[in-house]
Amino acid sequence: MTDSESIDGLSNWGRWGAEDELGTLNLITDETRARALREARTGRVVSLARPIDPASMMGGPFAPPTPPSPPVQQAMLYTGVPPMGMAEVLVVTPHNPGLTHLDALVHIPVDGQVYPGRPLTDAVTPTGVLHGSTTAFADGVLTRGVLLDLAPDDRLPPAHPVTGADLDAAEHRTGVRLEPGDALVVRGGWEFSRDPANPMPGMTLDAIAWMRHRDVSVYAGDIGDAHPPVDSQVPMPLHLVGLARLGMPLIDGAEVDALAAVCAELGRYAFLLTIAPPRLRGATGVPVNPQAIF
Amino acid sequence: MTDSESIDGLSNWGRWGAEDELGTLNLITDETRARALREARTGRVVSLARPIDPASMMGGPFAPPTPPSPPVQQAMLYTGVPPMGMAEVLVVTPHNPGLTHLDALVHIPVDGQVYPGRPLTDAVTPTGVLHGSTTAFADGVLTRGVLLDLAPDDRLPPAHPVTGADLDAAEHRTGVRLEPGDALVVRGGWEFSRDPANPMPGMTLDAIAWMRHRDVSVYAGDIGDAHPPVDSQVPMPLHLVGLARLGMPLIDGAEVDALAAVCAELGRYAFLLTIAPPRLRGATGVPVNPQAIF
Amino acid sequence: MTDSESIDGLSNWGRWGAEDELGTLNLITDETRARALREARTGRVVSLARPIDPASMMGGPFAPPTPPSPPVQQAMLYTGVPPMGMAEVLVVTPHNPGLTHLDALVHIPVDGQVYPGRPLTDAVTPTGVLHGSTTAFADGVLTRGVLLDLAPDDRLPPAHPVTGADLDAAEHRTGVRLEPGDALVVRGGWEFSRDPANPMPGMTLDAIAWMRHRDVSVYAGDIGDAHPPVDSQVPMPLHLVGLARLGMPLIDGAEVDALAAVCAELGRYAFLLTIAPPRLRGATGVPVNPQAIF
Amino acid sequence: MTDSESIDGLSNWGRWGAEDELGTLNLITDETRARALREARTGRVVSLARPIDPASMMGGPFAPPTPPSPPVQQAMLYTGVPPMGMAEVLVVTPHNPGLTHLDALVHIPVDGQVYPGRPLTDAVTPTGVLHGSTTAFADGVLTRGVLLDLAPDDRLPPAHPVTGADLDAAEHRTGVRLEPGDALVVRGGWEFSRDPANPMPGMTLDAIAWMRHRDVSVYAGDIGDAHPPVDSQVPMPLHLVGLARLGMPLIDGAEVDALAAVCAELGRYAFLLTIAPPRLRGATGVPVNPQAIF
Repeated sequence: MTDSESIDGLSNWGRWGAEDELGTLNLITDETRARALREARTGRVVSLARPIDPASMMGGPFAPPTPPSPPVQQAMLYTGVPPMGMAEVLVVTPHNPGLTHLDALVHIPVDGQVYPGRPLTDAVTPTGVLHGSTTAFADGVLTRGVLLDLAPDDRLPPAHPVTGADLDAAEHRTGVRLEPGDALVVRGGWEFSRDPANPMPGMTLDAIAWMRHRDVSVYAGDIGDAHPPVDSQVPMPLHLVGLARLGMPLIDGAEVDALAAVCAELGRYAFLLTIAPPRLRGATGVPVNPQAIF
Repeated sequence: MTDSESIDGLSNWGRWGAEDELGTLNLITDETRARALREARTGRVVSLARPIDPASMMGGPFAPPTPPSPPVQQAMLYTGVPPMGMAEVLVVTPHNPGLTHLDALVHIPVDGQVYPGRPLTDAVTPTGVLHGSTTAFADGVLTRGVLLDLAPDDRLPPAHPVTGADLDAAEHRTGVRLEPGDALVVRGGWEFSRDPANPMPGMTLDAIAWMRHRDVSVYAGDIGDAHPPVDSQVPMPLHLVGLARLGMPLIDGAEVDALAAVCAELGRYAFLLTIAPPRLRGATGVPVNPQAIF
Repeated sequence: MTDSESIDGLSNWGRWGAEDELGTLNLITDETRARALREARTGRVVSLARPIDPASMMGGPFAPPTPPSPPVQQAMLYTGVPPMGMAEVLVVTPHNPGLTHLDALVHIPVDGQVYPGRPLTDAVTPTGVLHGSTTAFADGVLTRGVLLDLAPDDRLPPAHPVTGADLDAAEHRTGVRLEPGDALVVRGGWEFSRDPANPMPGMTLDAIAWMRHRDVSVYAGDIGDAHPPVDSQVPMPLHLVGLARLGMPLIDGAEVDALAAVCAELGRYAFLLTIAPPRLRGATGVPVNPQAIF
Repeated sequence: MTDSESIDGLSNWGRWGAEDELGTLNLITDETRARALREARTGRVVSLARPIDPASMMGGPFAPPTPPSPPVQQAMLYTGVPPMGMAEVLVVTPHNPGLTHLDALVHIPVDGQVYPGRPLTDAVTPTGVLHGSTTAFADGVLTRGVLLDLAPDDRLPPAHPVTGADLDAAEHRTGVRLEPGDALVVRGGWEFSRDPANPMPGMTLDAIAWMRHRDVSVYAGDIGDAHPPVDSQVPMPLHLVGLARLGMPLIDGAEVDALAAVCAELGRYAFLLTIAPPRLRGATGVPVNPQAIF
């Protein structure tokens, strides 16, 4: 990123009109999909989602203590004696960092507005979301995914600020060039951590500019924004700029170690990527199980 | 089905061992997957899931009344003034008939046992499910899907009992033969209804026998078991036999009208089918957004 | 209220210090309690709470549709085969107008502040309430209650604006004078309604001034603020002034017809009133079952 | 209890008819209430409920981890920018041992039946409770309470089996005789614990027989049934016999240290006891804030 580029330059607000809700998903064309399908040759599938074991919601004499901050809680239901079926109620907090989820564009407001420049108060009401919600994902997303492994067989150093140069270097190693509309999948070798002694690496504004220049359609990674921020001036560039201004949907908390192993084994870092969260409209985020198909 | 076949004959208990949790998903082989991929040529995608608009959980002066029996409820969360992000809590009842969901094998017990013959009390505890849960779907399912449209451009008559002959006739119309490991997608032209004046059609035991003979891996349909039962002797054959005894996962409440239209338009009724619900283990069912890829 | 009195004059902010969380509950003294106890002579009890039948949270084949906007939802829990106990999970929206509940002082902010002048952002965080919450009610409230029946054997006209003169007239009929620290219980003969053809009566700013002059400790009534407002300049005087500025806890949605009948039968309109919601701290409201003891 | 008394002898099934839902609350008469009121002299109130701080339901970047097994979870709600009011959704598990709650008679089945001999399957359905629920408590309970402090200024030894003789000795110390219809409040000096190295004391069948002979209307205590059982033959006598067979409502998890201190200070161990949980019908248990009034 040159000095003349500002955060304000990193914006797709208006690029696809004032009513748009798809953001960078607009970049996925028939050509993108054809390119994606060419990567699917054997049908071998790798999930990019963390497995989630729900915590029991039941207390009292019936249950052991639940672990802290469960993303999904489960209450097994009584269905008669003998039970006619086994069922449950689930309580889900989609943005829990332990849950692989897809952020809707409305998730992060900027100065009282949400993508692509709509007043927050018009887009979100106490009873639901009217613009920029998961409705954009209701039909699913199919595109080509490319894995950029920033630390093969290793992990990034703590608090490492990921730049465009890091992404260039990883891309060079893969031998594949990320084309417009492709999904960018990043591996840093980390699990989510708030441990101040072990600060996570994270994206810089420079990396977001790289994504904008390459016209990435979707981001997925085991790292994202750093905790604490790598640049206190722009505390969460992936969310505040990538999601909110570029309109680039984010898959938070992806699990990519298995994917990296398969890519290394096969010697290829591009794949068909399908993203099909529950067809839930009007939410700010939704759990997802992205599928990399080789 | 001949007279000599009984319900007990329609069972896969033990076919893949006493510890199995995959059921008919075992039928999906490398060959199945290769066959499936051959159907994906352009990347056009059709969802088989009903769109769900969550009901607001908020009452009081803030919200209008919610519709009856919402499958997903949403409470928008306070995240400060001004809000640092928009988020929600979701309350989900996966087996709600208005929600397209994937039934786990443990969902329906038979005489105190669940697939493949395990005591229910071992498989399900008050705090969760230990056997036959959605854990089997955690990695996603990729196979070939074949649509059998039982009433093209129309709908089945009320209370119609679907037999193997009906499935044969529809298959003949498609020009594709359902092979072992394929997913069976059925269109009857119905939406879920409890209206006694408008009773739903549904599968007979004879149709389940057909699925067993063809070794269907997964069932999806806009019809399933009839309400009220078409045969009072075997009230819910798709669930009690197909799911519980054959170990065949069911996608309840699929929406297949759009799929049928695309199949008719393209003149082909087979497609790549990916099923990737949230990677939630230990549940009896989970919302899903199946993707038919052409 | 004379013209010289403004809303700002109707405030107790600072009256009991900058740290206060009790508001007008400070008005309940040993003398108030002794006066209250003198009204309890036989132990006959009348509840001021609406009975609530929870709505089942279960959907699917198991449950009929739930009624709209339930204040309490119930999911019956599986506790084994045979069940070792019957239990449930409850989902509660305390401020639902169908639920008799006690509003905490923090419930309504005024210009970014809450009683007694604390910044909202200090008092409420995304993870809970730090000031002005139901913690103030944790020990329960015991005081004398006085019923002012504004429409004996009848109901107030639709959209009637209740004034101090209305309260004076009703008090005159009872033959009891409301003393500082007493709870004011109001009957208007209404159930909560949003029906625009049947607009609820409600309190005016003049009535709130009356409560301030009498030093009411707690308000309970089957009417409260009108829908739509009786004065568009001050849309919700009971909540925006009575609760937020006077610091007077409100019991919303009280049911007082049974109480009025007993008062008429006994010929006395004062009683011991105990208010003991679940000892839940840190909430903005809580369901309550006030007890009038004669 | 003599040898000739069996568990079956300790039953009130049928004592108040086959349709009864009140159980030992029938023992509270006008005379009981008058006796109770005579104990209320100054209006000093002591709560018998544990204070509950709700756990935040929010995960993600917004919240710290929740503590294990919270009895009440809270999600603060978005109500606009600026917020028009502060509100929440609460998720409550009434039978959590950390929550002071009132057990309904239906809570514990005995051999497929619930008090007073009704088939469980008639009393409880997947969508709610039809008999023996908290409906019995909807109007509140007012009676005299008597504190029996089993270990003044101390606590009972671990795993101590409480007998009728223990209760007799404590009653002798108080100088008050427990009369029919009174509530029995027991202090053992314990908090709920599952720590096997620190096993809780608990009631024996002999103590339950004592309660039956004295016709106790309600039980409240900081101890109840022992974990692990003090008698493996009758693992939970207070619940399995006292609640289920005597029909005696139980207040689980009461906090009585403050009460014991006031009783000792005043030199009297009887008081007016009011029990007024939210007027929630059809539940198996409900949080409660019992008030001892002196």
